[in-house]
Amino acid sequence: MIECSVCHSKIASPTSKTISRAYDRHRSHLSSKTRFLNVLLVGGDCVLVGFQPILVYMSKVDGGFKFSPISVNFLTEVAKVIFAITMLLFQARHKKVCEKSLLSISSLVQAARNNVLLAVPALLYAINNYLKFIMQLYFNPATVKMLSNLKVLVIAILLKMIMKRRFSIIQWEALALLLIGISINQLRSLPEGTTSFGLPVATGAYLYTLIFVTVPSLASVFNEYALKSQFETSIYHQNLFLYGYGAIFNFLAILGTAIFKGPNSLDILQGHSKATVLLICNNAAQGILSSFFFKYADTILKKYSSTIATSFTGIASAVLFGHTLTINFVLGLSVVIISMHQFFSALSEVKDEKQSGSLEMMDSQDSKRVCTLDSN
Amino acid sequence: MIECSVCHSKIASPTSKTISRAYDRHRSHLSSKTRFLNVLLVGGDCVLVGFQPILVYMSKVDGGFKFSPISVNFLTEVAKVIFAITMLLFQARHKKVCEKSLLSISSLVQAARNNVLLAVPALLYAINNYLKFIMQLYFNPATVKMLSNLKVLVIAILLKMIMKRRFSIIQWEALALLLIGISINQLRSLPEGTTSFGLPVATGAYLYTLIFVTVPSLASVFNEYALKSQFETSIYHQNLFLYGYGAIFNFLAILGTAIFKGPNSLDILQGHSKATVLLICNNAAQGILSSFFFKYADTILKKYSSTIATSFTGIASAVLFGHTLTINFVLGLSVVIISMHQFFSALSEVKDEKQSGSLEMMDSQDSKRVCTLDSN
Repeated sequence: MIECSVCHSKIASPTSKTISRAYDRHRSHLSSKTRFLNVLLVGGDCVLVGFQPILVYMSKVDGGFKFSPISVNFLTEVAKVIFAITMLLFQARHKKVCEKSLLSISSLVQAARNNVLLAVPALLYAINNYLKFIMQLYFNPATVKMLSNLKVLVIAILLKMIMKRRFSIIQWEALALLLIGISINQLRSLPEGTTSFGLPVATGAYLYTLIFVTVPSLASVFNEYALKSQFETSIYHQNLFLYGYGAIFNFLAILGTAIFKGPNSLDILQGHSKATVLLICNNAAQGILSSFFFKYADTILKKYSSTIATSFTGIASAVLFGHTLTINFVLGLSVVIISMHQFFSALSEVKDEKQSGSLEMMDSQDSKRVCTLDSN
Repeated sequence: MIECSVCHSKIASPTSKTISRAYDRHRSHLSSKTRFLNVLLVGGDCVLVGFQPILVYMSKVDGGFKFSPISVNFLTEVAKVIFAITMLLFQARHKKVCEKSLLSISSLVQAARNNVLLAVPALLYAINNYLKFIMQLYFNPATVKMLSNLKVLVIAILLKMIMKRRFSIIQWEALALLLIGISINQLRSLPEGTTSFGLPVATGAYLYTLIFVTVPSLASVFNEYALKSQFETSIYHQNLFLYGYGAIFNFLAILGTAIFKGPNSLDILQGHSKATVLLICNNAAQGILSSFFFKYADTILKKYSSTIATSFTGIASAVLFGHTLTINFVLGLSVVIISMHQFFSALSEVKDEKQSGSLEMMDSQDSKRVCTLDSN
């Protein structure tokens, strides 16, 4: 708001359009609480991502995995379903007087009906788990790592198309810088021969790359869309359905492999140890954290968070085990940090978003506040 | 300017401070002509920088140089003085009726008196020419190349201190990105062993680094300051004095080495060929272009220009000689281009600068315009 120097009337900034999305309404009430939640999410993500390589190392027996990778995906989904049910039970016990129980049949049925869309990301995630294995047949792991950086840009394009999010030029540049920063950091891990463009030109490889990059990006963005478009549904309900669908799709996959490879594949607990159980729990916790990211923050914050988490792991391992930080790491991390600041700095934010408060949302928030006052 | 929606009066942007520098007044009249000049400067710089490595290659005899490097510096200054005098003669012949001749004794004396400050950058440049040789004793060439990237940031800090220029946060970040982008590009040329921090820790090395980075930066910024603070003096006068001082300082250096190393050093034409004459002319042209950069654009545009010029040389040599572009080159250039866009984009510009028009300047411009009309 600017005050006119002549007549002293308040006038609005000339550029203001309204984006009618549930999340934008939510965002217009960005409070210190939300910021605290974001810090918690990023902090949690850092811890979980940091433990990941240790658990993977511990799960290896004689340098390899004894268990079927499909079983890990299935068990992870089951663990997430158990977590969602536990949270629902917990909420039912501690619910306030005027709140409706989330476990009542009517509320479950209504939530299930409203959140059918969650089956889409669940299916896409399941497909992505298979693609990962296929990709390793066509590309070496370093190339796969490089290619997966492209996801950042694909996610941004999908967010623009599906979520109607708008990015300023500085924000697009920040995303490009994130991509470049991660790539610089990975350069050192590339084999000697591949310092010049080492992408394979085998027929079909480009198609696989496109699919490999697009499917997980679509999954994340659809997940964000599904979780936010039904913003009023409890996240515990949404988690229950999302992971339920995930478990079903992964179970179908296990049945499918049992048909092709014989009934041995049905023994999903084969080859598991205490370490793999911890790995599954870590995977599950990361998945649950993701859905909080997607609902209350966004996919891009999740990307930045993972990058910073990986960098912290690098710094920690350098401090603990006396490794030297490579100049690539330092340059790459600098680019990522600048990119992060540019993406989230108020200067570059598309300012219009803040002007989309809506009366319905205000009403529902007010009624909640009244309820809280009553129960106190 | 924003129009009030109530009373339709035009109101100024709320944040406006005045910086009282001759250049800022000049900048407030940024026209398409100025932009055209900038394009010409960058284009010319690209051509001259592109020819540089070819001429250096041609000047080598049996893989080394037969001539004394000090003689090159002295002859370059002399070439620049000759150019400045030629331009003054040219201007004197084609001057308009109401213009004062730049070659008249009175105007020369007055310009010399006003531009004594130009001796400072001339001295600093002369010192820098020696430092370059000393540095090569302490650091390997790759490290020198890396260290000289730090000049960008030092120049920015000096511009802030001496020229009172103000940069937005995005612009500071853009400068850091420029530094990082150039470094990424240079990583491939570093020897294998130096991928981790390869800076030498010899006592005094840090001091030499500080001097090595600060002296040329100070020279550029003082040059910009001296040229712009006497904005009314013709650039041909300013060039004459700047290069005159330069020739004097380099001649003193030749005398100095003659005292220490014997009279052989006085034979400044020893070991020169047609190729070295071309090299000296190229150096001189680059120097002259620099002073146009410093007076009508700025030191930072010069830095970006040189970086883009080097990149074009890289791309041209890849296209002409069938080299493959390394992934470092592509990533580094991407960062530099993003940095350049961010630095010069209107969004990130410190907006206050545009509001510092002054009546005196307007008057002098108006009188010039009248003069032009008369002469037509």
